[in-house]
Amino acid sequence: MLPLRGGMRDTRAMSTPEHPLDAATHLEPLAAGLYRGRTSANYANMVGPFGGVIAATLLNAVLQHPGRQGDPIALTVNFAGPLADGAFTVEANPVRTNRSTQHWLVVMRQKEQAAATASAVFASRRKTWSALEARFPVVPAAHELPVEPNLERALWTRSYEMRFVDGAVRLPSLSREGSDSRSTLWIRDAPPRPLDFVSLAALCDAFFPRLFVRRPVWAPVGTVSFTTYFHADAALLAANGEAPVLGTAHAQQFRNGYFDQTAEVWSEKAALLATSHQIVYYKE
Amino acid sequence: MLPLRGGMRDTRAMSTPEHPLDAATHLEPLAAGLYRGRTSANYANMVGPFGGVIAATLLNAVLQHPGRQGDPIALTVNFAGPLADGAFTVEANPVRTNRSTQHWLVVMRQKEQAAATASAVFASRRKTWSALEARFPVVPAAHELPVEPNLERALWTRSYEMRFVDGAVRLPSLSREGSDSRSTLWIRDAPPRPLDFVSLAALCDAFFPRLFVRRPVWAPVGTVSFTTYFHADAALLAANGEAPVLGTAHAQQFRNGYFDQTAEVWSEKAALLATSHQIVYYKE
Repeated sequence: MLPLRGGMRDTRAMSTPEHPLDAATHLEPLAAGLYRGRTSANYANMVGPFGGVIAATLLNAVLQHPGRQGDPIALTVNFAGPLADGAFTVEANPVRTNRSTQHWLVVMRQKEQAAATASAVFASRRKTWSALEARFPVVPAAHELPVEPNLERALWTRSYEMRFVDGAVRLPSLSREGSDSRSTLWIRDAPPRPLDFVSLAALCDAFFPRLFVRRPVWAPVGTVSFTTYFHADAALLAANGEAPVLGTAHAQQFRNGYFDQTAEVWSEKAALLATSHQIVYYKE
Repeated sequence: MLPLRGGMRDTRAMSTPEHPLDAATHLEPLAAGLYRGRTSANYANMVGPFGGVIAATLLNAVLQHPGRQGDPIALTVNFAGPLADGAFTVEANPVRTNRSTQHWLVVMRQKEQAAATASAVFASRRKTWSALEARFPVVPAAHELPVEPNLERALWTRSYEMRFVDGAVRLPSLSREGSDSRSTLWIRDAPPRPLDFVSLAALCDAFFPRLFVRRPVWAPVGTVSFTTYFHADAALLAANGEAPVLGTAHAQQFRNGYFDQTAEVWSEKAALLATSHQIVYYKE
């Protein structure tokens, strides 16, 4: 007969199995600051994994580092080359630790080649004068909107529940080129998972390439650089729980092979949790 | 008597002396990818140099690298610690070179400590379907607006000619906290200098911290992470020449010690040259 403590652990593990996002971003420590991870079929994209899960994995390497101080403020991920299905390593190094901020460089490698690099700034926050300048969009409540079917070409969409206010991607589409690339949607992990920095980092990349909203035909695209600013601290994220968040994203310019897009992520209670920006390669 | 070629070089050097920005971002090669630079009084800020000139110097290390391919697409600079007046080193390493993109990591050091790190993506562009989604603001022509006096506290402002449409920073001010942090201005190097990637990278950081527009009292502030997406290629920048560019910047949220701000930089002829984002520490 197993001892009681072991038995309790087993029961808990069976009743709440590891969430697919935690499995996909799981890192096994190999040495100080060095980890091994593995791609997950639940977050597969057309080529390699969904970029958001790569960003979340790189952030997770810092979050798990014993020398980490504070919460993430800024994360920039550069997607340097394709990541094949299978194992990879992640190395996270603190570049400089100040009194209230800490700077990190992170590299994801596969077969000794860099697949992605990241920089992150972590900080300890204090209460200060604060002001919100962006505006929460006027939208219906999440439960008033239908859940969007997944995109078969992008398997990772199965791992999110999206309810579009406008700007859904339905490709190939009979609609013509529009004048606007904005999408606004309620979104949460599927299955639901309490919001934290890892899931927020991934979710900030879940807004489809704006090219597909503006010009609804398939084309090769790939984010080259992705930056997220975290306005929320851990407590504000925890307060959101498993509720959906509201995201809105739009492009500023498509020009000669690259476009940028910018996004806001709001809590259900209208707190601005993150602002996020990326520049994306596209081919006609 | 000096040989003719030497004499011609001397004459040219006297008639068109090096622009202060080129002096401030000058890098002397020490070894492959390793350079020495020196801070410049013309771009001094309250503590250390103006962040824009640090960003431009880091970008310059890649631009001058013999292995560089293509033009900058994305630049992220993390300001890790204060840079003292004097010499520093910059090390630029190509992380990965693909067919059309190249990824770089750059570190600025002083006394063996990282003062700033950067990542950059360079790329070769092709002509493609293009579309502008952001809108050029409705503004008077530059020559219809007065030149703003420099800010004595921020010596680097002497190195820019700014003509504000709105949102000038005049501190300390009798005005109260506003509801908006937007500034729109015509800006160019002083003395004038043809626009290129180095000057554009610096100029993208020349929008004052939005805190000072929203709440016009001095407070300690410092950018921690700064990202610029370059929409323009070298030819489009060269076409701008020494004409002023139009910049517009605003914050999205000030919250517990950090705020973000986002900017657009347009050519006089309404081409969107760059979009730029940063997150800034502030203390009450």
